[in-house]
Amino acid sequence: MEIYTKTDCPYCEKAKDLFDAKGVDYVTYNVTGDEERFEEMKERANGRETAPEVFIDDELIGGWDDTSALDATGELDEKLGIATERDDEIVEHRDLIVTGTGIAALTAGIYAARSDDDPLLFEGDEPGGQLTLTSEVENYPGFPEGINGTTLVNDMKEQATRFGAEIEHGIVASVDDSERPFRVTLENGDVYTADAVIAASGASARTLGIPGEDELMGYGVSTCATCDGAFFRGEDMVVVGGGDAAAEEAVFLTKFAETVYLVHRRDELRAEDYWEDRVQEHVDEGDIEVRWNTEATEIHGSPEDGVESVDLVHHPEGHPRERRAAGEDVEDLALDVGAFFVAIGHTPNTDYLADTGVELDEEGYIQTAGGHGGGQTATAVEGVFGAGDVVDYHYQQAVTAAGMGCKAALDADEYLESEVPSAGEVEGSAEAPADD
Amino acid sequence: MEIYTKTDCPYCEKAKDLFDAKGVDYVTYNVTGDEERFEEMKERANGRETAPEVFIDDELIGGWDDTSALDATGELDEKLGIATERDDEIVEHRDLIVTGTGIAALTAGIYAARSDDDPLLFEGDEPGGQLTLTSEVENYPGFPEGINGTTLVNDMKEQATRFGAEIEHGIVASVDDSERPFRVTLENGDVYTADAVIAASGASARTLGIPGEDELMGYGVSTCATCDGAFFRGEDMVVVGGGDAAAEEAVFLTKFAETVYLVHRRDELRAEDYWEDRVQEHVDEGDIEVRWNTEATEIHGSPEDGVESVDLVHHPEGHPRERRAAGEDVEDLALDVGAFFVAIGHTPNTDYLADTGVELDEEGYIQTAGGHGGGQTATAVEGVFGAGDVVDYHYQQAVTAAGMGCKAALDADEYLESEVPSAGEVEGSAEAPADD
Repeated sequence: MEIYTKTDCPYCEKAKDLFDAKGVDYVTYNVTGDEERFEEMKERANGRETAPEVFIDDELIGGWDDTSALDATGELDEKLGIATERDDEIVEHRDLIVTGTGIAALTAGIYAARSDDDPLLFEGDEPGGQLTLTSEVENYPGFPEGINGTTLVNDMKEQATRFGAEIEHGIVASVDDSERPFRVTLENGDVYTADAVIAASGASARTLGIPGEDELMGYGVSTCATCDGAFFRGEDMVVVGGGDAAAEEAVFLTKFAETVYLVHRRDELRAEDYWEDRVQEHVDEGDIEVRWNTEATEIHGSPEDGVESVDLVHHPEGHPRERRAAGEDVEDLALDVGAFFVAIGHTPNTDYLADTGVELDEEGYIQTAGGHGGGQTATAVEGVFGAGDVVDYHYQQAVTAAGMGCKAALDADEYLESEVPSAGEVEGSAEAPADD
Repeated sequence: MEIYTKTDCPYCEKAKDLFDAKGVDYVTYNVTGDEERFEEMKERANGRETAPEVFIDDELIGGWDDTSALDATGELDEKLGIATERDDEIVEHRDLIVTGTGIAALTAGIYAARSDDDPLLFEGDEPGGQLTLTSEVENYPGFPEGINGTTLVNDMKEQATRFGAEIEHGIVASVDDSERPFRVTLENGDVYTADAVIAASGASARTLGIPGEDELMGYGVSTCATCDGAFFRGEDMVVVGGGDAAAEEAVFLTKFAETVYLVHRRDELRAEDYWEDRVQEHVDEGDIEVRWNTEATEIHGSPEDGVESVDLVHHPEGHPRERRAAGEDVEDLALDVGAFFVAIGHTPNTDYLADTGVELDEEGYIQTAGGHGGGQTATAVEGVFGAGDVVDYHYQQAVTAAGMGCKAALDADEYLESEVPSAGEVEGSAEAPADD
């Protein structure tokens, strides 16, 4: 099999990690700076311009999303000829299962492993979580010179596994909290049981829902500037959004773009002052133009030619789409651009908890106990705990996620020590010494 | 002036940092492995065996506690001949003052500086907080091989100051919340004002309150194994306590002690399984003996000869001191030991908040809002926020303190942006551009 990759491409690393974990041999072609390879990839991938592009026996599998989706159903293993027979048996029982391998999940893994809670972390379709999509992390305490997001995540993985945490690829489809131990079912049908569960499954990038967005996703439309920015060198680019992520992506893209248009529906950013200042510097230098009180309404282009232009609406008092829907006059605009980046926030990954008693808020974020003292990460279901961006819709920093992951592991450990017999006690010999 | 130091001595570093900050010249004598110097120090320091020992013009100042206490009142500067005239003027106005320079305070400093909130951190008499008293930190996420506690703190200081945070030595005596800006008064009389305050002043080691403890503190009684353990090489030692800190100190002291007696009033530890396992390994090897259901009642010795023995009481069902007080029979025991380490928890440093509206719990911990979304670190006084071990009596981990420090800085920034005019707007020209 073959993987087309590029330099500094988090999703390429994820694809390689997945096939490495499966023990499959493959060749890689790095298209960065290799125009011929890039054209070859584009042709074989039906015009798609994003890396990675995965091929098995000359068949196009697609990018990371496609690969991961096929893996979740077991079809990838079939295509690779390594599928195994499944049955309804429980694959394994664990004291603790953690959903996710982002900062919160990995910190929970470090602490839970040190507490002898034998944690198993399920790495979903965003291995390492959102921090792997960040180029440089400057505000995680302990790294005065900053640290690369993927490096930090990998260091935490090493730390967690060093103390005994295990990480497996698998997308959790559901948790059954009607019996104990909990039954955790993966999308490929595998069933695990666990005495406690930490939900640290994070949040995924939100999209605008405008015409052209879905059709051109991967062909010039992207939710990850660090992944795809370099593909559109020398072009004009749009970034939609007004928070930290939008500001950071706009600044990052100035390395490649002719001009970055930062399109925001309000008249001011809601970003850290640090990022507002960096944006302003690039505005002063002419690299970034901010289009205040403006929204995108349609993206034009084709898979063959990529993004060609974007339609915008503007109203001097902001939120122009709402105003037009309400019958107010708005100004129509258009921009010719070659790439379109969406950075408008995230949706928590909590679908697999829908049939449990875990309480979610309107947007799907997990409600935890909060308060003072122990048990802050407890959910409405005893034995299920929540940590990281799947809980926190406000602060959303690497270090706050880490802090919550630690609390969840300590809360889970207290629950495991007091509430449930350990797996060892259930399965072990009755002749074990009483003071064990 | 002269400072007697030893290798791996956090308080020696603190003393040197203080005099470096004052720009004072001094000579150091490292007594580690130098018996002659050690005896010289002991003689000049009236028999005290702990480092550092500070001398100014041949006058004994004492250890770090004495030095810091003299500095707080301004007397140290007088002795050094660098005292300056004080008056009632405000020394300086800042957007944000942070009390403390531990993990929570430094993380708040990193985030507040990046938010352009011009933070000033006051470093009290425990610079760097409790983590500097830890030898190796293995569970702070991001360092798979572990990191030295002092190194981690110094890296965070560098990170905070790199983004513009300032750190000054000064012990906050009181906060006046009856007016805005807040008036923050130091023990040396200096008055600062601030639009917002983050209380991140941590917690300090608790003592037992038994006869001999105060008299022998610094002469064989200590609350810091990493600071003082090496002074008592080859002796038997007692560690009192049953939590993570006690377990860690007992394990650490096996490097130096003939036998470490871990004295705990209950029949099991309340430590991380990781530390319980390490203790058990040393018990198996014969380095540690655990005395369950036992408490110390008196420490015998003298400043000249150090600790000589300790009286203990034991009851098979635990808490023997309470039982004796209630008239029950308990067993009296004694141990000949050369050092006595107290590791029974901490008291929050909140005296300076006593006259404010900040709500404290029975033990003095700050009550914060908690809950979901923004403002989790808010106290009962608008504009005062709390973070770290001065709030958290339960989890007390470096990474949870860091997470809270981050939240406090983001909460304070939101308060400063929405509630108060910035210092610039108050003091600046009325002709400043409107879009500034």
